[in-house]
Amino acid sequence: MGSSAPLDFYFDFSSPYGYLASHRIDEIAARHGRTVNWRPFLLGVVFRETGQTPLKGQKMRGPYHEHDFERSARRLNIPFNPPPNFPFPAQAASRGFYWLADADPGRAVAFAKAVYRASFGEGQNVTDIDRLVDIAQSVGADPAAFRAGLADPAIKEWLKTETDDAIARGVFGSPFVFVDDEPFWGHDRLEQVEEWLKCGGW
Amino acid sequence: MGSSAPLDFYFDFSSPYGYLASHRIDEIAARHGRTVNWRPFLLGVVFRETGQTPLKGQKMRGPYHEHDFERSARRLNIPFNPPPNFPFPAQAASRGFYWLADADPGRAVAFAKAVYRASFGEGQNVTDIDRLVDIAQSVGADPAAFRAGLADPAIKEWLKTETDDAIARGVFGSPFVFVDDEPFWGHDRLEQVEEWLKCGGW
Repeated sequence: MGSSAPLDFYFDFSSPYGYLASHRIDEIAARHGRTVNWRPFLLGVVFRETGQTPLKGQKMRGPYHEHDFERSARRLNIPFNPPPNFPFPAQAASRGFYWLADADPGRAVAFAKAVYRASFGEGQNVTDIDRLVDIAQSVGADPAAFRAGLADPAIKEWLKTETDDAIARGVFGSPFVFVDDEPFWGHDRLEQVEEWLKCGGW
Repeated sequence: MGSSAPLDFYFDFSSPYGYLASHRIDEIAARHGRTVNWRPFLLGVVFRETGQTPLKGQKMRGPYHEHDFERSARRLNIPFNPPPNFPFPAQAASRGFYWLADADPGRAVAFAKAVYRASFGEGQNVTDIDRLVDIAQSVGADPAAFRAGLADPAIKEWLKTETDDAIARGVFGSPFVFVDDEPFWGHDRLEQVEEWLKCGGW
């Protein structure tokens, strides 16, 4: 018998490939008796470490990936309507996630899925605090408490620690999945994540 | 009925993922009634265009990919023993390829496979001209004529033109495959190349 530890799913809320993976990762894990530990982090902080820049705007790579975002979504019948402000800073959404996770990890995951759906599914601006409060309320959170939580220094610190931990584990992109200690970078490696879960590695 | 045009397979001889793809691309195409147009180019020239650098040596991305080269090879039972001088300049191997292709494209492909096998399969140094001449001879070329061909200005120009064409088509990495005009970057997209060939796109 292999491990039954949760998968670690690292993602940035501003990542289109993270959005695509958010539709699939729970089901992939569940098919193999696993759960998923959702871990938003700040890719911009990682980029300062690695010297990378966002795909959008990169010469040659940028246009390819704009095409591939759409193509990858189409292949899976996932709606894809990125917001005009993509790529956007995802601090507020990420802090909201951890504030929710502190009380109810399941609600935090529902929030993450709803944030992704609003942004990359419907083109909404999820840097807007009022929008985030609405989304939090839609998954059952108290809106005033959630709004206050976004400014909680302990929550800011939690996100910082998660991002530092991600860097320490070698996470340099989004999404990034660990099956036990095996790292997989990219939405297009989810098939290999599933294969690894199935056969226990190769 | 869809297209029966050859696939364009762009690769750099110093690319581990290009090496892995070289074991698979002909068979994938053949399963769908296609042939492959092998097109070595110089990734270093492309990197000057995009500002990228080789994976090896990159912070965080470098160690991940060193691990992934091995893991990807193991998954497919492909021998993987990169040469100590990786990443290496692949001008000579690329020129040798086009010199051979001028007379016999099939022999050029046999040479490409043998060069990749010698370098990433057996750890040999394929920047060494004598080694390349031996490999060319092993696939039936005249060694003296091949050696002279490596210095032929028309062949140098051919490689330059191929690299410029690759850039003009948006090729920013190795391997890079076009199915008709549909671009796929990376060894880990070969499954999607096959899916695209099978269903005619999505």
